[in-house]
Amino acid sequence: MPELNPLRIGVAGLGTVAGGVVKLLRDEAERLARQAGRPLQLVQVASRTPKSGIDLAGAAFSTDLRALHQAEVDVVVELIGGEDQALNLVSGALQRGQHVVTANKAIIASHGNELLEQARGNGVGLGFEAAVAGGIPVLGALRSGLAANRVSTLAGIINGTSNYILTAMGEQGTSFAEALAKAQELGFAEADPTFDVEGIDAAHKLTILAALAFDTEFRFADVYTEGISHITGEDLEYAKELGYRIKHLAIARRTEAGCETRVHPTLVAQNSLLAGVEGVMNAVWIEGDATGPTLYYGAGAGALPTASAVVADLVAIARGDGFDWRVGGEQQAALPIEQTHSAFYLRIPSLDAPGVFAEVATILGQHGISIEGAIQREAAVRGDGGSASWVPIVIVTAPVAEAAMNSALDLVQKVPEVVGQITRIRVAHFADE
Amino acid sequence: MPELNPLRIGVAGLGTVAGGVVKLLRDEAERLARQAGRPLQLVQVASRTPKSGIDLAGAAFSTDLRALHQAEVDVVVELIGGEDQALNLVSGALQRGQHVVTANKAIIASHGNELLEQARGNGVGLGFEAAVAGGIPVLGALRSGLAANRVSTLAGIINGTSNYILTAMGEQGTSFAEALAKAQELGFAEADPTFDVEGIDAAHKLTILAALAFDTEFRFADVYTEGISHITGEDLEYAKELGYRIKHLAIARRTEAGCETRVHPTLVAQNSLLAGVEGVMNAVWIEGDATGPTLYYGAGAGALPTASAVVADLVAIARGDGFDWRVGGEQQAALPIEQTHSAFYLRIPSLDAPGVFAEVATILGQHGISIEGAIQREAAVRGDGGSASWVPIVIVTAPVAEAAMNSALDLVQKVPEVVGQITRIRVAHFADE
Repeated sequence: MPELNPLRIGVAGLGTVAGGVVKLLRDEAERLARQAGRPLQLVQVASRTPKSGIDLAGAAFSTDLRALHQAEVDVVVELIGGEDQALNLVSGALQRGQHVVTANKAIIASHGNELLEQARGNGVGLGFEAAVAGGIPVLGALRSGLAANRVSTLAGIINGTSNYILTAMGEQGTSFAEALAKAQELGFAEADPTFDVEGIDAAHKLTILAALAFDTEFRFADVYTEGISHITGEDLEYAKELGYRIKHLAIARRTEAGCETRVHPTLVAQNSLLAGVEGVMNAVWIEGDATGPTLYYGAGAGALPTASAVVADLVAIARGDGFDWRVGGEQQAALPIEQTHSAFYLRIPSLDAPGVFAEVATILGQHGISIEGAIQREAAVRGDGGSASWVPIVIVTAPVAEAAMNSALDLVQKVPEVVGQITRIRVAHFADE
Repeated sequence: MPELNPLRIGVAGLGTVAGGVVKLLRDEAERLARQAGRPLQLVQVASRTPKSGIDLAGAAFSTDLRALHQAEVDVVVELIGGEDQALNLVSGALQRGQHVVTANKAIIASHGNELLEQARGNGVGLGFEAAVAGGIPVLGALRSGLAANRVSTLAGIINGTSNYILTAMGEQGTSFAEALAKAQELGFAEADPTFDVEGIDAAHKLTILAALAFDTEFRFADVYTEGISHITGEDLEYAKELGYRIKHLAIARRTEAGCETRVHPTLVAQNSLLAGVEGVMNAVWIEGDATGPTLYYGAGAGALPTASAVVADLVAIARGDGFDWRVGGEQQAALPIEQTHSAFYLRIPSLDAPGVFAEVATILGQHGISIEGAIQREAAVRGDGGSASWVPIVIVTAPVAEAAMNSALDLVQKVPEVVGQITRIRVAHFADE
């Protein structure tokens, strides 16, 4: 290969993902140069907390992030995380005419529109494949492989922590709290797991996926988000009995009425591919009008999978592949959750009195809601030791407008024999069932 | 958008896929122009057999393929199929300095090395995403998304006809012949199904996948190929009883000793994702050293899925994305099938005499082959009405060198109580089981 200008890389941060990036650039230098058509050269690493024991392969090191401002850095890799400082770093680099690669889903979801504008205005690329689903090249698929398609539906298991917890609850019959503790012990969950189990992390990623899939702007504020902490082992068992698994899905759909984006626990048919995505693994299901259903599966997190995505963006920038993501080309209303349609799983704790099921069914019917499946167990003794026995009514409905379900459940909740909070979990069906 | 030079497209052929390409270019012109940053303009269609009823959106039509030679055609889309004429067309276009996009797996598998050389020499792109797994953007994933990875294992269900037949045999208990007839009736199989059911089509595709995954040359002649016509309903049932499904897999592995490429029926664990790929759908499993296991799933054939892949390549060319595929950078021996290692499923038809299983087990043991699972059914009356009863011995072994298995089965076949041809099917295990 003739000597070509190297792509000169500066890395901000020196955590686990940055360590993976440094390792790949160092150990795979020759192969990456062949792939990219020119060398990928790490010239500068900056991190406020230096780490010993990482071989930087001759790159300079500084504890001052401003070391990345130098003109010798063609591309800044932002791996410091967080919001404000990362945003300043990324925005500053773009404005100086440096390419940027980042794994930071929060700043892309919340500030992606301005950042893409800045990148385009300065004629540089902004790569963020690593921000969504780690090692799965799903943004590349949306941008390139599926470029000919109008995407109608996208559904992803895009938070490994939540998926690990639901898998463990289902397999080992443990409670949410126990499964979370186990995930924390294994390093799959943070000390404060809110971002993961309440769906915020997934909502960031869904914002990015939806913008690319539908060519709309990044609209994080429009994502409906519901976590998994209220899911019980009982629900997992009933779901199984009805032929489903419960997954924490991030769903984006385009309908005549607009685009809906929502993150919530979801029943999926047990013979669907998404149901088979276990533990910390991720997968994204994408339906295009030309290609039909497609699915992308892999590790959603971890040092090397995420580093793999960062380096893929660096290779693309080195090749000169066009990186001017186009989003916002289509004006489409964001559909509030009340206007979406879903099938529902309902668990209705009720006294074991005659006619309760009929009464519930009547209320649902009056709201145009059909029952597609139901379970009625034998009566069990009430937990409070009272004399009346209770039995949960478990129902799976046909698809219905969310608003109609809200009205119906307001009434069902008031039925005297309904003795506790009704659990409702949306159901989603896919073409591979 | 400012007026930019359009990418001027000529299409050779006017079959179903070409019809899909014309439709997408015509109906999605505005969106594609936004994606590509410039218009994709269909200027010429050439097909020796004109078809009426296709709206060419103003493009010229000719029954002479030489109409595509004109300098006004920037990129030639080869969709005439076959080998010789298609090869001439593609090679001629590249040498005239036209980009080429093709769905022709046979010419890429057999002549890809020279064609890529010609493309590079003339500074043009050669896109063939549509040649493998239709609507699944798996070549793009290998080239871009997984660029940082050394691929160790790749395994695909990449022939929809075979997968349809095996799925139908398993679900409906039909024979190979019945399932094939049904596939032909539904248009999923050709009148002459040899290419599909004997694995030649899959071998073409595997050649392409392996070259990109391992950075070796295209080596079609080195692919070991075995079809599915000898698979019986009995085998599917035994496999199920042992916790497996039978799929027609195309497998490429890189080991210390070299690269192996093989297409054959394969037992896969029933809880693996590949086992859940049903009917005409395709999927490719790729393990990279950085990203770990990944999987890509979708429609492997059909007019619009394949057209989606063709148009994706056109968008990439319009963007100016580097299209100089690099293969052949790594010198690696092609490993003959005798030197590969697999676990095996064995069905050994034998008389119901005492000690036969022990004798078989002893022979296997002498060749270092461990038994991991076995089924022995109750004796059944022989089909020929003879007085002796027979019972198949069904065994799943641990992984073993193919050559050792060959030697062992030569001896087992000579055991007097073994009354028919032994069936052997390889078994493959994946990280998601």
